[in-house]
Amino acid sequence: MLAPGALAALSELFGPRLSTAGAVLAQHAQSESLIAGPPPEAVVFPETTAEVAALARLSAEHGFPLVGWGAGTSLEGHALALQGGVTVDFARMDRVLDIRAGDMIVRVQPGLSREALNRELRTTGLFFPVDPGANASLGGMASTRASGTTAVRYGTMRDNVLALEVVLAGGEVIRTGSAAAKSSAGYDLTGLFVGAEGTLGLITELTLRLHGQPEAVSAAACSFPGLAAAVDCVIATIQSGLPMARIEFLDAATVAAVNAHSRLTLPLSPLLLVEFHGSPAAVEEQAARFGELAAAFGQTGFQWASATEDRSRLWAARHAAYHAILASRPGCLAMVTDVCVPISQLARAVEETAADIAASPLPGPILGHVGDGNFHAILLVHPQDPAEVAAAKALATRMADRALRLGGTITGEHGIGAGKRGLMAAEHGAGWQAMGRIKTALDPMGLMNPGKLVP
Amino acid sequence: MLAPGALAALSELFGPRLSTAGAVLAQHAQSESLIAGPPPEAVVFPETTAEVAALARLSAEHGFPLVGWGAGTSLEGHALALQGGVTVDFARMDRVLDIRAGDMIVRVQPGLSREALNRELRTTGLFFPVDPGANASLGGMASTRASGTTAVRYGTMRDNVLALEVVLAGGEVIRTGSAAAKSSAGYDLTGLFVGAEGTLGLITELTLRLHGQPEAVSAAACSFPGLAAAVDCVIATIQSGLPMARIEFLDAATVAAVNAHSRLTLPLSPLLLVEFHGSPAAVEEQAARFGELAAAFGQTGFQWASATEDRSRLWAARHAAYHAILASRPGCLAMVTDVCVPISQLARAVEETAADIAASPLPGPILGHVGDGNFHAILLVHPQDPAEVAAAKALATRMADRALRLGGTITGEHGIGAGKRGLMAAEHGAGWQAMGRIKTALDPMGLMNPGKLVP
Repeated sequence: MLAPGALAALSELFGPRLSTAGAVLAQHAQSESLIAGPPPEAVVFPETTAEVAALARLSAEHGFPLVGWGAGTSLEGHALALQGGVTVDFARMDRVLDIRAGDMIVRVQPGLSREALNRELRTTGLFFPVDPGANASLGGMASTRASGTTAVRYGTMRDNVLALEVVLAGGEVIRTGSAAAKSSAGYDLTGLFVGAEGTLGLITELTLRLHGQPEAVSAAACSFPGLAAAVDCVIATIQSGLPMARIEFLDAATVAAVNAHSRLTLPLSPLLLVEFHGSPAAVEEQAARFGELAAAFGQTGFQWASATEDRSRLWAARHAAYHAILASRPGCLAMVTDVCVPISQLARAVEETAADIAASPLPGPILGHVGDGNFHAILLVHPQDPAEVAAAKALATRMADRALRLGGTITGEHGIGAGKRGLMAAEHGAGWQAMGRIKTALDPMGLMNPGKLVP
Repeated sequence: MLAPGALAALSELFGPRLSTAGAVLAQHAQSESLIAGPPPEAVVFPETTAEVAALARLSAEHGFPLVGWGAGTSLEGHALALQGGVTVDFARMDRVLDIRAGDMIVRVQPGLSREALNRELRTTGLFFPVDPGANASLGGMASTRASGTTAVRYGTMRDNVLALEVVLAGGEVIRTGSAAAKSSAGYDLTGLFVGAEGTLGLITELTLRLHGQPEAVSAAACSFPGLAAAVDCVIATIQSGLPMARIEFLDAATVAAVNAHSRLTLPLSPLLLVEFHGSPAAVEEQAARFGELAAAFGQTGFQWASATEDRSRLWAARHAAYHAILASRPGCLAMVTDVCVPISQLARAVEETAADIAASPLPGPILGHVGDGNFHAILLVHPQDPAEVAAAKALATRMADRALRLGGTITGEHGIGAGKRGLMAAEHGAGWQAMGRIKTALDPMGLMNPGKLVP
């Protein structure tokens, strides 16, 4: 419980940017997924790093938790105030601070969304590629080590965050990394905070790598007679070294939902959406080589989308897939699973998952960033039906176990949050305890996003 | 001091693979650079992870330090037993454990050298690209977060180590990462141990990313009228997005040393060595675009080396540059500086450094992996002449200060070791203290490579 003294100090620090209004608290108790939490006791909207540092000093002094909040698009309840305390909403720290086109980097505040960043970059010839689908905040994306459709070409947040400013528990402000492209100067603190889900500190500034806008872009939708053919085509494509910019899998159920939601008429069979980036000649060569591979795996329909408008429509539909699937079973919420396996195990992992879902009472369309070996089943459940919720949990746990058995990971991009903490020991063994020791070293009072990620 | 009980226990564990022979101890008291240390008290040659774990238990029980040793090619005295104890020489843990061509990964032991790995991979169509010049061990390369000539295209060890097995202080064995291409499952422990220089644990196994051997390779040596023209050409090349596989700078003094050492007749002016990887068509296109850029910066001579033999000769000469420079001033040792700056600041950093060296009494040829903004001055000193040593240290410190002032880092690839610990506070401020807290959390007794990297 926030002591009255703490609330008074917060009020002095944030004035009208402190809220304890029921609606504001309730808004910060929700997430995009099945997971909900108790509301925080207060929400603050800092505007500067100095304010966040002062807030962390108050947190240590009064012993209340701090939970960072970006866009609220997390799927594992990362930003829920499970143990009360103060949610730190970065909505007012959303500026682009410095575009350094010559160095292909940009400094931003954590509340900036990826789409807003790319709007600001439009005239520079550069773009920020990491694209998890949702218009997430960049601070949140760094904290969950997000990736998405373009990671197969441009990497994840791990690869695209170059430097950070972080407020530690107790209020100390550190800078990690530099504007140089690489460094061997000590522990990779940048890499440690990327994916730490706010449990080690609050990110108040990010330096991100940018990439040149590709000269030419071409996309295609390619249907396959069955799931195995589509997935095997992905494996062959990746193993051939073809530099795909995107290669996304949608099963027939996902295609049906997307068609209904986005008014498309894609054939109702397993689909790959692919995209190529490069010089016009390179894109043409890549597309031709992919076409040959797809033919070898018996593709049953190939639709090109070279015009910007057609491509945008296709990818908008892909990005709307989550909501399309939700809309396919009204009244349901989604348990969004997220595993990642070595590419050689992808076909087996997807097929076993599909069979497991087919044998369950739940619909669970499958889709994913299969170029990385990363895929999701969107398990649709009536949240009031305990049997459905239990069935979904059992399916999700079996998916995670299967991923581990095949040499993979329990989460490719969504992170641990509150939802997957129970699976951490299975993946990391004694390594999970080592994470706990690092947590205690940097946050001895356990004030930074408590109840998440670590033991 | 190793207690007699400790020595007896070590002897029981390692038998003839424990050595206290003077010659063996002396060999492990040297490094490739000016930095030397006291000899360790004993050297052991483990063959299994279990032996390393048992060793770490003995270390904790008897309180003696453990210092990992790979190929002894470190340039900052990382592997010197500054506080005595036992050097752990991984020479007998040098096997390729598992090549998974379909997943483009390989599991190896830490004592394996990068050249030996690539020999084993030759028939697979894959290769391991990270190339620091020296034939370093892969465990050592991971521990120093090494990079080198190909990092501009393929990344550093940070990007190419996917998973580790690590023996922690006290003997616990953990596995970090997985065989999946990415993961969001908790703190990036793999990234934390890469670059930790053995201060957090001993790496006993690595899973590395492999890359497809390029279909076509083409290389060229390109001379420029002056240092500024060469460096400006690099900056323009990187900013153009041209996917260089290598782009190396050698100043005129380095070229002279290389000519003498490798019997070449390169023009005595600043030189770029470049290499292109890709399909035959892509390589041709890239080379043509680079040629246009080089012409725009007034290149004064362009030598192609498309035949394998010519390329090998050129890169062998580049890799021998360090020894060529050493040979250019007999009786001298080298202080090898290593800074990395944002690419936009590269010309300024190199020019100011060259002017600083020219005003000093020392020869200091400059070369580097300039596509990353990373360069070195090889300062040649008579180790018995305190004035020369002092002048070299002053130059090196000014280089580091300059790199920080320009937004860069005090080391792009060589690491901190014993040599650069005094500069860590300047680069990281309070972040260095955070590193110390992590160190204490994982190695509370301070037994893992003490005296290095952390406060």
